[in-house]
Amino acid sequence: MSSAELPVAQPGARFLDEIREQPEALLRLVERGADFAAVAGEMRSRGATTVRMVGHGSSDNAASYGVYAFGLLPNWTALRDSISLTVYYGAELDMSGCTALALSQSGRTPDVVEYLRQARRRGAFTVALTNDAGSELARVADAVIELHAGLELAVAATKTYSNQVAALGLLAAYAADDGLGFAESLRTVAADMGSLVSSLETGIAAVAMPFAYAGRMFVVGRGAEFATAREIALKLLETCRVAAEPLTATDLAHGPVAALDPLFPVWAIASDDATLPAVVEAVERAREAGAIVIASGSAADRIVGADYVLPSPSSSSPLLAPLLSVVPGQLFAWALARARGLDPDAPRGLSKVTLAR
Amino acid sequence: MSSAELPVAQPGARFLDEIREQPEALLRLVERGADFAAVAGEMRSRGATTVRMVGHGSSDNAASYGVYAFGLLPNWTALRDSISLTVYYGAELDMSGCTALALSQSGRTPDVVEYLRQARRRGAFTVALTNDAGSELARVADAVIELHAGLELAVAATKTYSNQVAALGLLAAYAADDGLGFAESLRTVAADMGSLVSSLETGIAAVAMPFAYAGRMFVVGRGAEFATAREIALKLLETCRVAAEPLTATDLAHGPVAALDPLFPVWAIASDDATLPAVVEAVERAREAGAIVIASGSAADRIVGADYVLPSPSSSSPLLAPLLSVVPGQLFAWALARARGLDPDAPRGLSKVTLAR
Repeated sequence: MSSAELPVAQPGARFLDEIREQPEALLRLVERGADFAAVAGEMRSRGATTVRMVGHGSSDNAASYGVYAFGLLPNWTALRDSISLTVYYGAELDMSGCTALALSQSGRTPDVVEYLRQARRRGAFTVALTNDAGSELARVADAVIELHAGLELAVAATKTYSNQVAALGLLAAYAADDGLGFAESLRTVAADMGSLVSSLETGIAAVAMPFAYAGRMFVVGRGAEFATAREIALKLLETCRVAAEPLTATDLAHGPVAALDPLFPVWAIASDDATLPAVVEAVERAREAGAIVIASGSAADRIVGADYVLPSPSSSSPLLAPLLSVVPGQLFAWALARARGLDPDAPRGLSKVTLAR
Repeated sequence: MSSAELPVAQPGARFLDEIREQPEALLRLVERGADFAAVAGEMRSRGATTVRMVGHGSSDNAASYGVYAFGLLPNWTALRDSISLTVYYGAELDMSGCTALALSQSGRTPDVVEYLRQARRRGAFTVALTNDAGSELARVADAVIELHAGLELAVAATKTYSNQVAALGLLAAYAADDGLGFAESLRTVAADMGSLVSSLETGIAAVAMPFAYAGRMFVVGRGAEFATAREIALKLLETCRVAAEPLTATDLAHGPVAALDPLFPVWAIASDDATLPAVVEAVERAREAGAIVIASGSAADRIVGADYVLPSPSSSSPLLAPLLSVVPGQLFAWALARARGLDPDAPRGLSKVTLAR
């Protein structure tokens, strides 16, 4: 077959395939309960109960979720640590009593590898969370948790992100002695995720089309859904070239609301949990400023006057909801990129493995 | 005098006055060394050496600086804590061994007050950092540090932000037994800040004018200057209605760089410290994408090919530089707002005290 006869992939075909593969990737991860039990056991026996997470891009977004997973399940303090403080400034932090958890799809992000090396020297129990158990990151870590997301070809992460979120949830659940229960819930979530992708896939283009010329957007979420807001904003930036900024519901009111007008849309993630009133209030402010509102999440229908509603199935815990509520954002980014004539599989200027400092 | 004869303030007159007042506000704060010594002593004697900071908007931006101040001076772990985790989800975190440090100009931000109340119940030593020692926040705290920024009338914070940054630096320095040395350096910084404001004030309009129609911008900084990047981006959002997003140098390469083009300018803060190579590299990527680049900071001249250069005086520590490098951003926001026909003293939809959840 000559190259002229090679099937030409549709722009965004890989991105869409990988969005669809998420439930399956999630189920692969859930099978690896023993890995999580072992690492969680080590964290507990070492008393390494302050969790310092590092990563860039989607990995850092998943870390935002980790703050809530460790906070709500074993009631441990988890933080997105500063890489610069340790790697560039060489701060002599005492990391005993800490787990340093490095997130990197490829396991090759230079400053993340260097951070983990330093963290180990400073007394932390070091864990690599990566798709590549043979990577440099894995080699410098005390323990490795494989993500099992499978080969990810689109530059913009989808199944890696959702497996990172699920992995942080599982690790926190095992640390709280409820790993099996959480794993069982993840199986339900995987099924719901599959239905959600199917049900949104065909209609999403019609929702994205009116935003074909949008230059900027806020994505609002609070609590565990702040991770989702960050991840959706990043997908819009990298695949659609929309200047999308993630904000907590309260931060919107502390300044950024002044920038809104009818040409500055707001995406709000409304989950049916304790943060809902804050999100509802933030959207009211945005609507007063004239913003067009897209509401998603399990409580999307509670956002009064939303222009577009993309509901996701409800789930039994605020720690499960983010796995579902990210899906409409991924599909919207896929559809919007195509509406803008962009190929979401190959954003300009990006490569799959980022070696930038 | 009839109302027709009342002097009409120039749009942005308050904002500019308060930018100018920063050196003076800083010197007032430096005089209060004893307050900082007392609180730092209490943190040490209680062993409350993990510092959990909370705040919204500019206060949260200052907290980004606090991570580096506590990390580099007493080598303590400081984090921007999740308010939602404690206030909305009621996570039962053990906060013994922690100082909870709440930042609020007015001392009236509802969820910040509630966070501090809960943190005290959970064993933290609680400190309020506020302009109002009679506020509810001050009442619920174990200790109060007054900001002494003086009456701030413009909605967008300037001298409150710089005094918050300086206060976090002072507290960290006293915790490391070098309060007097840091205070002395702050006096030098105050003098440099005054000269910087004067030298930029007249020329800044010419730098801002070409951006009169810019809709979006990235503001890039790393390490201690990430706080500055966040604060400049917030000023641009609230006073100029530019969709300005703060990014670390490395995060730019992990996705957002794909959104850049010649109509998407990048502001880079380059300080002459260990993070400089990462910033230089990020700007190279941005220039390859065609972005117009504004370089500021003490190493602004090391940014090759910048279209606009706004240097600030060099300083003796990465912890002093952010007080100077924020100034060009504040003045640029003032000038750009005017170029866009906006009044930076009164951003639409904002009030000085934000009571949103």
